Amino acid sequence: METTYFNGKFIPKNEVKISPDDRGFLFADGIYEVVRWYKGFFYDMESHLSRLKRSLRELRIIWPDSDMFPSIALDLIKKNKLRNQPAMVYIQVTRGEEKRTHSFPSPDVKPTVYAYAWGFVPDINLKETGIKVMLKEDIRWSRCDIKSVALLANTISFQEACENGLKECVFVRNGFITEGSHSNIFFVIDKTLYTHPESNFVLPGVTRKNVLRIARQSGINIREEAINENRLRFAQEAFITNTSSEVIPVTDLGGNSIGDGVPGPLTRLICDKFKAETDALKG
Amino acid sequence: METTYFNGKFIPKNEVKISPDDRGFLFADGIYEVVRWYKGFFYDMESHLSRLKRSLRELRIIWPDSDMFPSIALDLIKKNKLRNQPAMVYIQVTRGEEKRTHSFPSPDVKPTVYAYAWGFVPDINLKETGIKVMLKEDIRWSRCDIKSVALLANTISFQEACENGLKECVFVRNGFITEGSHSNIFFVIDKTLYTHPESNFVLPGVTRKNVLRIARQSGINIREEAINENRLRFAQEAFITNTSSEVIPVTDLGGNSIGDGVPGPLTRLICDKFKAETDALKG
Repeated sequence: METTYFNGKFIPKNEVKISPDDRGFLFADGIYEVVRWYKGFFYDMESHLSRLKRSLRELRIIWPDSDMFPSIALDLIKKNKLRNQPAMVYIQVTRGEEKRTHSFPSPDVKPTVYAYAWGFVPDINLKETGIKVMLKEDIRWSRCDIKSVALLANTISFQEACENGLKECVFVRNGFITEGSHSNIFFVIDKTLYTHPESNFVLPGVTRKNVLRIARQSGINIREEAINENRLRFAQEAFITNTSSEVIPVTDLGGNSIGDGVPGPLTRLICDKFKAETDALKG
Repeated sequence: METTYFNGKFIPKNEVKISPDDRGFLFADGIYEVVRWYKGFFYDMESHLSRLKRSLRELRIIWPDSDMFPSIALDLIKKNKLRNQPAMVYIQVTRGEEKRTHSFPSPDVKPTVYAYAWGFVPDINLKETGIKVMLKEDIRWSRCDIKSVALLANTISFQEACENGLKECVFVRNGFITEGSHSNIFFVIDKTLYTHPESNFVLPGVTRKNVLRIARQSGINIREEAINENRLRFAQEAFITNTSSEVIPVTDLGGNSIGDGVPGPLTRLICDKFKAETDALKG
């Protein structure tokens, strides 16, 4: 039986009991974070921890032990014997448990903290072939910068993509491409790398940030600028980024083939540099 | 100990165990409904049941026993000895429990169904004094017609209102008043009753529908039309509606006094007729 973390203890998953009064269950009043384990280290745990704390701060959820997240994550890797394989750790913090009312509990209650780890095999094939993605009106709320568990819009949109044989749903808001249901998106137009600037309409992705750094270090021209839907035809390359998949080339967006329909040179360069970086960190 | 309904059984609340894999907890992937008990009957249970089924249908959550909701609700009233007092029943149905992934479980899993009842004392004073409400940009998603548990935007907005000493937060989207964080809103301008038309931006409120019917039966002119923020100064009266509070006059909206700052004649008429109707139904 999987060992999970629940409110200060490491316990078997089947002993975790979320209350029906939990505000995570009743109101999606909580946040989460996902980190990737590379056989020996978490990739950029510092940024994940800092984003976790920002999400908590934005929603005014008080978890005094938030700095313990890296050690909780490491303990989950060890206790579940995942040290020597690619793995992920998920953590969710909700405002806690209280009789249902829209306003926050007063006085504050203890937050609910739940975390678990799992091993996985990255699908490296997608990095070679690229993926086709759906394009859809962004139906989400306007605080997409908070990594909250209010993900219903994301799940129904991603499901729609899956049912159309596509690997991600990318959103358009007021004519501009924002991001995917669980990824950020980048475009290459005339050798310049474009992605939506940090704002309330996109998640400040940790992989997004590192890809921008890697691109900058590689001398690639960068513009954090939203791309209008009608400029998509000028995109020679595109790729999505997230913590679990790293960098995945996009060869088709909403039925429009991108570039030659195969991963482009700049995308390959960034994929390779990202891999080189994680390989080097393994020591 | 309170008796609740959980996945087909009536059990004490402390025995309800929501799984951390429940999609309601992880993704806000679920819907809810609230009905009011008037010492002997549920007000317009038919409309609540029909909206419950619509919400399930929109999200493609399959709960084959949805028609049992009225009898579950009645059993909760009886088992909790609430027959002879004002009470409420809450029901939540989530897509169920499955290893975390954005796409829907395939094959389908059983939905999680949780319901409970509680007695309450309606605050009739507010009907006399009216309430002051906040006005705020609508940060919610664009499927507000689905009564989903993805309520984070609603809770943080309502909390902001509370902290400003206000009783509700009313949303403005693209300049137009939509509805409150957990209520619909009506305006009286030149003897005509206005409310936002049914659309993806507002919940099709059961009390909203009945108030429109009562107004129509009373010969009041009705326009289901969104009011622009800059027309608010012409509003002589305003009120909000929801299942628990019925009809509550609004005397101040975003710092602007409405009419004379006291509940207006048309609002009072509708309050009285609504009360007369629920009194008559008591038989």
